[in-house]
Amino acid sequence: MIQIRKLVVIGVGLIGGSFALALKAGNHVQHVVGIGRSQANLDRARALGVIDEVADDLGVAIDGADFVLVATPVGAMAGVFERIAPHLGAGCSVTDGGSTKQGVVAAARAGLGPRVAAFVPAHPIAGSEASGADAAQVDLYAGREVILTPLPENAADTVARVRSAWQQCGARVTQMEPAEHDAVLAAVSHLPHLLSYVFMEELAQRTDAPGLLTHAGTGFRDFTRLAASHSEMWRDICLANRVPLLVEVRRFEAALARFVALLEQGDAAGLARVFGTARDARRGWLPLQGDDR
Amino acid sequence: MIQIRKLVVIGVGLIGGSFALALKAGNHVQHVVGIGRSQANLDRARALGVIDEVADDLGVAIDGADFVLVATPVGAMAGVFERIAPHLGAGCSVTDGGSTKQGVVAAARAGLGPRVAAFVPAHPIAGSEASGADAAQVDLYAGREVILTPLPENAADTVARVRSAWQQCGARVTQMEPAEHDAVLAAVSHLPHLLSYVFMEELAQRTDAPGLLTHAGTGFRDFTRLAASHSEMWRDICLANRVPLLVEVRRFEAALARFVALLEQGDAAGLARVFGTARDARRGWLPLQGDDR
Repeated sequence: MIQIRKLVVIGVGLIGGSFALALKAGNHVQHVVGIGRSQANLDRARALGVIDEVADDLGVAIDGADFVLVATPVGAMAGVFERIAPHLGAGCSVTDGGSTKQGVVAAARAGLGPRVAAFVPAHPIAGSEASGADAAQVDLYAGREVILTPLPENAADTVARVRSAWQQCGARVTQMEPAEHDAVLAAVSHLPHLLSYVFMEELAQRTDAPGLLTHAGTGFRDFTRLAASHSEMWRDICLANRVPLLVEVRRFEAALARFVALLEQGDAAGLARVFGTARDARRGWLPLQGDDR
Repeated sequence: MIQIRKLVVIGVGLIGGSFALALKAGNHVQHVVGIGRSQANLDRARALGVIDEVADDLGVAIDGADFVLVATPVGAMAGVFERIAPHLGAGCSVTDGGSTKQGVVAAARAGLGPRVAAFVPAHPIAGSEASGADAAQVDLYAGREVILTPLPENAADTVARVRSAWQQCGARVTQMEPAEHDAVLAAVSHLPHLLSYVFMEELAQRTDAPGLLTHAGTGFRDFTRLAASHSEMWRDICLANRVPLLVEVRRFEAALARFVALLEQGDAAGLARVFGTARDARRGWLPLQGDDR
């Protein structure tokens, strides 16, 4: 169990705001400072009680902080690390909420220099298509997995401190190598997001899109929910995790081509195998804790 | 407003069972007879009060019926139409719940002969990944669209009667040509189902699938929900609507190829356009009535 005196949340949206709310709800933090690009969003976060103070200078905010969460889109993290490096105190731990890890680790090494020892990368497998301070939820991390990808530079007690903070948000903390993380997430998260976005964009560009959309039902709703996500965040994730993601796209394209061949041949047995395998795997998937399927 | 004396539901699952429940709840039907391939499912439907009687002979069941719903997978409908044709009384109306319409119409013309005049094809845009009598819900059709694709052979009062039955289930009834229906549904429903199934099947076949699936989150859950649907039903839909569906698959493959090119080139602005277009379209989509988005 850790107690945080001054928490700085950089990027007070769904991920950053929920982290602050959870720690506040458990009385694990005395004071939360938020900083970000949108003054309106920060004001809203303060009004909602997600943060206690709005900072307008990142360096000043970091001075005296004992815990920092970097919760910006991953593409903005390199700049953040550079700017906070000179202000990080000796006892301060840093974590992040980025959905890719190899790129974030490289940016942290470059930006933080020797102070990278304070940074324990993390990826909470939690989210929704909502974004901004209004999307913050006190129980977003309850029962969810948070994957830490600790660095060789981290001292054991730094890792323990960051692990505790996420656990005190209600998360189940696991651990992986950054490269393994990125490959796994490309398969189970980044590819589905990409497919949902591409499907939605293709449809949206048609002249008859408004008419088509009036006939869309619950299947469409679920399938395209991901395409309502934070678009800058997902652009950054795709770029940062491009190599493993392209591997996944190629596998999917090959599987789709196999399906099309079965369909063109009218191979009912072959199609039944594909549908049956998928259905059994999906129905056998253990539900997320405390959640419907 | 119509009053049904004897309703026969052929295939007492999500679609057929919900139709019976809704009409019973509104006291629009006196007696519901169910028939299908699984005795266990029919017994369950009777125990749940979805149907009043289990039939084991389709001809006997149809004798004296004044309303029939064919709610089997579309691939089984040709056989059903053939078998019910000799038993359809003069005042009996027939509708269906199939997700494709051109194939069903052809099967109805072939199987029902001149009695096709009694058949008003319908597609309720409602469903879930659940199946069987247990999945039946009294309010499945409340506020949902049901698309009728009436035939030139239908008398106006036959169409009116079928329209009323669906409306009495709570549905908003619209009307289209069968070919238009099939093209629209291929785009907004059949393609997303296919993509979800193919994604899930590709993942499920990997040796490391169990490990990968432990890290899947809410995005995965929503995206793959469709892949838990009734696999025989979806095999049949894909086969029946093969031509429009392949048109949609080709469009999607082209859009995916464009996306991959942007990703390979690291074109952040191009990717942002794709993500932004998709997000705006999805966020602008009007929610289903009485439902979250």
